[in-house]
Amino acid sequence: MIKAALSVLLVLAAVSSTFAKYIPKTGKRIPQTLSRGWGDQLIWAQTYEEGLYWSRSKNKPLMVLFHLEDCPHSQALKKEFSENNELQRTLDEDFIVLNLVYETTDKHLSPDGQYVPRILFVDPTMTVRADINGRYSNRMYAYEPNDIKLLLSNMQKAKKLLKSEL
Amino acid sequence: MIKAALSVLLVLAAVSSTFAKYIPKTGKRIPQTLSRGWGDQLIWAQTYEEGLYWSRSKNKPLMVLFHLEDCPHSQALKKEFSENNELQRTLDEDFIVLNLVYETTDKHLSPDGQYVPRILFVDPTMTVRADINGRYSNRMYAYEPNDIKLLLSNMQKAKKLLKSEL
Repeated sequence: MIKAALSVLLVLAAVSSTFAKYIPKTGKRIPQTLSRGWGDQLIWAQTYEEGLYWSRSKNKPLMVLFHLEDCPHSQALKKEFSENNELQRTLDEDFIVLNLVYETTDKHLSPDGQYVPRILFVDPTMTVRADINGRYSNRMYAYEPNDIKLLLSNMQKAKKLLKSEL
Repeated sequence: MIKAALSVLLVLAAVSSTFAKYIPKTGKRIPQTLSRGWGDQLIWAQTYEEGLYWSRSKNKPLMVLFHLEDCPHSQALKKEFSENNELQRTLDEDFIVLNLVYETTDKHLSPDGQYVPRILFVDPTMTVRADINGRYSNRMYAYEPNDIKLLLSNMQKAKKLLKSEL
């Protein structure tokens, strides 16, 4: 009887280990999200190509946000950015959004150099709106946590689409 | 007394609405993950540029997986792929991984055309291993759910790194 119970246990153990999901040696990880904390309710594009595709097909401007997980300025901006409902709603309804921790090969996305945090708008005509910038002349596309109002007004500018050349 | 209680309630409501997180009109969404269900415990690169960067700096081959959420062949492969512990462990320990639903502009990643599901390996020397392929001569980099053993053996091939030209 005990032997039978043991066999059942062994079989159960074998079955469960077959179906057990892989867990890294260093312990279970929290799955990474595409939002990286900048707005869990937004639908983020994964790559610049994908962002451009959605921008053209939905005729909405694209916001590209460069940041780094270990940059205190990025983290401070992220807090205000993700907690501002007006900003999140406008992005969700009127924009295509992309956040990147690695630079793309497209030089148009770094008109005055590569730094973080940095926000660029791209028109559905695939034109980078270098004319829409923040308040710092040496880093034209940088925003600080207390620049959210300026960012919101820049989003309104970006919503006024350039005329398509077609 | 009732008035005072009402005011407190109103203040509480105002405060909570200020701090309430944005919820889309269509209802709360589950945050998108970078894994898209292909292995929640793996550390996925977001873009090809990021994948190449990690591949070179960690001297590990990069696996690039093209798929589509509404493709039944992709979904069938995903099930076997995500549930195979040997495959997940090997990818986690010895590879840099990237899954994409949009094509990149790099033509080397589509040696015989763009289709899904499609798996390409890239050596840390940034050479796409067009020599590592599946069993279908018309779609050389396609894998079906019962090709997981072949995929595992191809991963072993990809682990034998090309000599660096440096």
